[in-house]
Amino acid sequence: MKISSISGGVTAPAGFQAACCAAGIKYKGRVDMAMLCSAEPCAVAGVFTSNVVKAAPVVWDRNIVQNVKRAQAVVVNAGIANAATGPAGMATCEQTAAHAAKALGIPAQYVLLGSTGVIGPVLPMDRIAAGIDAMAGALSDTAEAGTAASRAIMTTDTVNKECAVRFELPAANGAGTVTVTLGGMSKGSGMIHPNMCTMLAYLTTDCAIDQALMQRAVEDVVKDTFNMISVDGDTSTNDTLLVLANGRAGNAPICEEGEGYAQFREALFTVCRTLAIKMAGDGEGATRLMEMRVYNMDTKENARKLARSVIASSLVKAMVFGRDANCGRILCAMGYAGVDFDPAVIELYLLGREQTLCFYRDGCVQAFDEDAALAILSEKEVRFGCDMRMGDQEATAWGCDLTYDYVKINGDYRS
Amino acid sequence: MKISSISGGVTAPAGFQAACCAAGIKYKGRVDMAMLCSAEPCAVAGVFTSNVVKAAPVVWDRNIVQNVKRAQAVVVNAGIANAATGPAGMATCEQTAAHAAKALGIPAQYVLLGSTGVIGPVLPMDRIAAGIDAMAGALSDTAEAGTAASRAIMTTDTVNKECAVRFELPAANGAGTVTVTLGGMSKGSGMIHPNMCTMLAYLTTDCAIDQALMQRAVEDVVKDTFNMISVDGDTSTNDTLLVLANGRAGNAPICEEGEGYAQFREALFTVCRTLAIKMAGDGEGATRLMEMRVYNMDTKENARKLARSVIASSLVKAMVFGRDANCGRILCAMGYAGVDFDPAVIELYLLGREQTLCFYRDGCVQAFDEDAALAILSEKEVRFGCDMRMGDQEATAWGCDLTYDYVKINGDYRS
Repeated sequence: MKISSISGGVTAPAGFQAACCAAGIKYKGRVDMAMLCSAEPCAVAGVFTSNVVKAAPVVWDRNIVQNVKRAQAVVVNAGIANAATGPAGMATCEQTAAHAAKALGIPAQYVLLGSTGVIGPVLPMDRIAAGIDAMAGALSDTAEAGTAASRAIMTTDTVNKECAVRFELPAANGAGTVTVTLGGMSKGSGMIHPNMCTMLAYLTTDCAIDQALMQRAVEDVVKDTFNMISVDGDTSTNDTLLVLANGRAGNAPICEEGEGYAQFREALFTVCRTLAIKMAGDGEGATRLMEMRVYNMDTKENARKLARSVIASSLVKAMVFGRDANCGRILCAMGYAGVDFDPAVIELYLLGREQTLCFYRDGCVQAFDEDAALAILSEKEVRFGCDMRMGDQEATAWGCDLTYDYVKINGDYRS
Repeated sequence: MKISSISGGVTAPAGFQAACCAAGIKYKGRVDMAMLCSAEPCAVAGVFTSNVVKAAPVVWDRNIVQNVKRAQAVVVNAGIANAATGPAGMATCEQTAAHAAKALGIPAQYVLLGSTGVIGPVLPMDRIAAGIDAMAGALSDTAEAGTAASRAIMTTDTVNKECAVRFELPAANGAGTVTVTLGGMSKGSGMIHPNMCTMLAYLTTDCAIDQALMQRAVEDVVKDTFNMISVDGDTSTNDTLLVLANGRAGNAPICEEGEGYAQFREALFTVCRTLAIKMAGDGEGATRLMEMRVYNMDTKENARKLARSVIASSLVKAMVFGRDANCGRILCAMGYAGVDFDPAVIELYLLGREQTLCFYRDGCVQAFDEDAALAILSEKEVRFGCDMRMGDQEATAWGCDLTYDYVKINGDYRS
């Protein structure tokens, strides 16, 4: 099974165009709207926030994924979340979709929506409509158009996030194989503690695949990708992951779980994992990516819980910022993860690029070389590992350090 | 039922003495050990951390509470947590208790222990022993001795925490009533997200009460006091709440749930609530106390979950620090509390000392007077309220703002 990383993002697969514009929704002088459009209707899969309070576009998109099951375009804005906006928020969804449908010549129920930003305000429909008109006339399948779209959906993100992969599948006409491409973009910097999904992530593929099977793959893959990152423990009202598949690659449609499905799932996993790690490393105020690997655990779900608990701990996050090897905090965070284990048998490690330090074993914090620990904690990506010695299951979670800038950004985000 | 607040702490009840000393365990030139001693054996009740990783003194104390059920003294040190210390940690517990028992002329199994500080290091037994000897000769029942003990157990706390109350109970000899006193002290500034209990809290009373009944009262009262505060979401390995009752007041012993028990429970609630709020307001780096009241909820437990979720949210905490009325974050934090509710019917309020602002109603963030909101958010104690409109149950949780200083303190705590 060979998955190759390639450059590009949402426009890498055949038949997808993107555009963006500065609609003036909240930010001055920057692009703040993006549009994706497929040359033909796509199978669509998606997962959404588990927050009881769901933003209007989440309600809108969920209906399309669950009932319409097909889509052709996505319209996204940054600056205003369209959350806690009541009936007015749903009305702007309907109007936005209707306007985009008209501009693109497609059914309104094929238009997916996404919003990110401040909770509360209602979207300015006139600017949204003008933005849609501008973007509909500027759609392009170039890599630059995809990259520009990934920038347009940023809020407090410091870098845009996109990636794409290629793999081979048997051709629909039986003559050898065809190349299938899967690309994606995402944003997310604060309010990141996805549960069922992440902030905003849009994936496109030219793969031909059954909608229900793609939905299964998405629900499976998010468990070890977007659901394994945390910036601040806050699960947003707007978390959305959507995957659109238009079938343009010409592969024999994937209609059952077999080798083709496994290939697709692996490609999906690669793109989701790459985007998730980029989001964790670009958490608000973050200076470093933090990774926690839990292995030899009894069940996968318990391994996930332990890894997530560590990367979400404020004390561990502050410790990584301060490069202080106060490793008892990691043990403590595992202890309140809601998972049973014997502290006397597990072993904890600092996993450096060039060396591994054991700092906890036999129920005791171990003496270790402080200089070596400082060197590992000073790496751009800080990795911790825990051998649970309880089985053969593993999980990895990603987060970031807690910094002065996180407080600064979030002490005054609205203004 | 009349509970009067009085000055003092652990030495306010009859028959309790306290002492402290600078044992040089970690901090230089400050008191870092405390001792409490009762003139006679006490009934003892307690609750401890739910963290799977339990510090050695937690294991030691839990055995006394569950099996011995009586105690006469408490020895506490700050600077080193005696957690993740394995068999060596338990050995220091045995040695500490034995040494204190000899110095005080009581059984070793009547000596409770407490430690707070860095996880990992083993306690220096020679300094602990010398500290015990010094304190055993300096025990005093003055208010000053109690206050000094409450200072000795501080780590990153900026103020000591103590309080005491008085109430009347029928006399044991049938002649009218006697005055019963309940006092306490606590410490806790970081790693504060108690679950079953809080960091370290020691309460003393001269009430005569059945041990099992007192244990019931403690387990009941923590749910709405220590378990309703959070500084950073991290449940410590050392959380301990102990209550010692020596019966010196001469009341008719409380042996069943009746009016006397209700009085005692109310006094216990008052002391625990006061200490818990002091801890929340003195969270690491905190500049302001934050309070979240959830009312008209279907069940008490759901009300607690909602209130806790809001005060534990990093985004809400940063918002309070920044005095920014980004109130959608409160709604968002309620949404991921794991409790079902209808966002369209609840109402959210900013509860100022002099005015109340509704900022969310009918599913929408409301327009509000920004100057008035800023004034409320600038108060020393910031209060939020939510009318769930689902029933008649309520709960309140307390936390603090997230500041630059939290990051500073925890980026470099060990050194």
